[in-house]
Amino acid sequence: MHHDRHERGLEFLNRIDGSQGEKVMAALASVAPDLGRMIVDFGFGEVISRPGLDLKTRELCTIAMLAALGTARPQLVVHLNACLNVGATPREIVEALIQCGVYAGFPAALNALFAADEVFKERGVSPLGE
Amino acid sequence: MHHDRHERGLEFLNRIDGSQGEKVMAALASVAPDLGRMIVDFGFGEVISRPGLDLKTRELCTIAMLAALGTARPQLVVHLNACLNVGATPREIVEALIQCGVYAGFPAALNALFAADEVFKERGVSPLGE
Amino acid sequence: MHHDRHERGLEFLNRIDGSQGEKVMAALASVAPDLGRMIVDFGFGEVISRPGLDLKTRELCTIAMLAALGTARPQLVVHLNACLNVGATPREIVEALIQCGVYAGFPAALNALFAADEVFKERGVSPLGE
Amino acid sequence: MHHDRHERGLEFLNRIDGSQGEKVMAALASVAPDLGRMIVDFGFGEVISRPGLDLKTRELCTIAMLAALGTARPQLVVHLNACLNVGATPREIVEALIQCGVYAGFPAALNALFAADEVFKERGVSPLGE
Amino acid sequence: MHHDRHERGLEFLNRIDGSQGEKVMAALASVAPDLGRMIVDFGFGEVISRPGLDLKTRELCTIAMLAALGTARPQLVVHLNACLNVGATPREIVEALIQCGVYAGFPAALNALFAADEVFKERGVSPLGE
Amino acid sequence: MHHDRHERGLEFLNRIDGSQGEKVMAALASVAPDLGRMIVDFGFGEVISRPGLDLKTRELCTIAMLAALGTARPQLVVHLNACLNVGATPREIVEALIQCGVYAGFPAALNALFAADEVFKERGVSPLGE
Repeated sequence: MHHDRHERGLEFLNRIDGSQGEKVMAALASVAPDLGRMIVDFGFGEVISRPGLDLKTRELCTIAMLAALGTARPQLVVHLNACLNVGATPREIVEALIQCGVYAGFPAALNALFAADEVFKERGVSPLGE
Repeated sequence: MHHDRHERGLEFLNRIDGSQGEKVMAALASVAPDLGRMIVDFGFGEVISRPGLDLKTRELCTIAMLAALGTARPQLVVHLNACLNVGATPREIVEALIQCGVYAGFPAALNALFAADEVFKERGVSPLGE
Repeated sequence: MHHDRHERGLEFLNRIDGSQGEKVMAALASVAPDLGRMIVDFGFGEVISRPGLDLKTRELCTIAMLAALGTARPQLVVHLNACLNVGATPREIVEALIQCGVYAGFPAALNALFAADEVFKERGVSPLGE
Repeated sequence: MHHDRHERGLEFLNRIDGSQGEKVMAALASVAPDLGRMIVDFGFGEVISRPGLDLKTRELCTIAMLAALGTARPQLVVHLNACLNVGATPREIVEALIQCGVYAGFPAALNALFAADEVFKERGVSPLGE
Repeated sequence: MHHDRHERGLEFLNRIDGSQGEKVMAALASVAPDLGRMIVDFGFGEVISRPGLDLKTRELCTIAMLAALGTARPQLVVHLNACLNVGATPREIVEALIQCGVYAGFPAALNALFAADEVFKERGVSPLGE
Repeated sequence: MHHDRHERGLEFLNRIDGSQGEKVMAALASVAPDLGRMIVDFGFGEVISRPGLDLKTRELCTIAMLAALGTARPQLVVHLNACLNVGATPREIVEALIQCGVYAGFPAALNALFAADEVFKERGVSPLGE
């Protein structure tokens, strides 16, 4: 079962984060490889892979949280990509982040949307006209 | 158009928050009735009522944000009710809040889930066995 | 000079917080009387008593900060009283807190305004009609 | 009236933020132009332009909030400029930010003052000797 | 190994939190028993039980974090008790919390010390004269 | 006594922060030299130099707080160095920061550990194999 959650964690990490997940794990290798394993095994293998809420909604909730906290830009970028990877449209992402302005203030919404703008441009997609 | 957003705001406030929205407005009457109007006209009439993201996902994002911030218990309770009002199941709510533990820490998830427990009991619903 | 800052601190504590300041000091007596002395000597005697910004603006900035942080309701109540003690009007206080909604989100503004409503009612003042 | 708030919003945006406001709007064009319009129409046209609190105090409260939150450096820079634009002196700005150390900790005060140092140098002003 | 971490988690939960840990698990039973299991298995069984840092220092770091965040009073109370359970003295706890004032502001330190005062009184211990 | 705290503050600043403390003071010279003096006299001379908690535990609590807040990377870097300066091992630092993931979320832990990785590499030390 312990083995199971690791396999399941890796599978979800790859499905959701793509190559960006691997980069985070590699970056942890010299300082805290155990944290990398925890993120895969626990974060992905035990939490995010749970049934009961679809991946697209999970990822939209995640970018909303990270945008509201305003303290985790690198992780926000990873999860903006993840949102697109699991089927959210750029427009849905923008809507979730604009709504962040109501509950966490305009600066939180602005900084998250500027991060989203970079991700959208990198991937050649746009929320306009959707 | 200004009139429109007020009408639309009230309609969404009632659909989403039910009688709890009115209570918040009433509570503001002696201190800042203008803020109440802003919440209706701008918050509901101009943001939450936007097309592009369904109400259920909007409300799940909102409870995720409020749980992560950890500074807005009364508003979290209103939006836990709102989640149920717009069709989220108790299980989906629980999943969004457990996931909050990964991104904002276990205390944030715990406090939000204890609030959810109260709301579920008040409404006679349960996330277990779903 | 050390003696000076203590005297100056007490003088400003009394002028700004009135009897509420003394209550906080008394409440610290059994757990951390040194923190009480630091708040008087450093907080009031070395910072808040500095020239260069008038007390009314200082206190309005303080309630704006505490409202935005959303983690310090007891201190917000003390400083809402302090605002009134140093000459801010209920209307000015309400304006500063509504503005908090723009930069820290509506829940932060709502919770601060409900605290202000209690303070205003206790003191028999009102921001309406000003 | 809807038209009015847009005109009033633009007028206050220009008076307060100068060319920096326009840059923010332009930066939003490819990702969320609607948020730009909300900031002008609602943020400036409906909140910041309200009577009841003078613009200088409003802006000092804003930098105090943003400094305390510590999550919005780009917006802090815009509003440090705005403070100067509406008549606050560098010394008043420094006093508000030092005070932030008392209520939100020294790191929050330090980071805000380093941002202020950059803004002051860019504009050729200084808080010292005032 | 999966079984191991559950056993180890329970052992550390009991050693650190005593009966308060069980109460939290019981309180989660009707809303999110899985989160309770995650806290035991992952939080205690995989993180807090790691060698490399002694339990007393771990718990002092935890109350410092919770005090600084200011959003988790129930968990702060549990961990103030935990600090005492694993050998920290009331004086050490008070020192860690006063220091919080320097990095997260006086209100954060005050609210944490008032929580500590309650815990100390309940357990009949005192930081004074140590 | 006022003189005393300044001397004591400088002594602790040098012992804990080394040359990095001086750099912060120098950086404040053009904007708020008084804040620099407050940090030395009050922060170091009156708080951090207090008996009752050893310097190593104080610094581990400080990095835990700054990691949890997630808003003070420059100060986190200074105190990661300070931890090493007063005798904490890289492994102890890593453990404190991994634990931050449990109470403040994985993104807070990740960003703090990436900062620690840089500090460790700069100083030619490693938490692995300890």
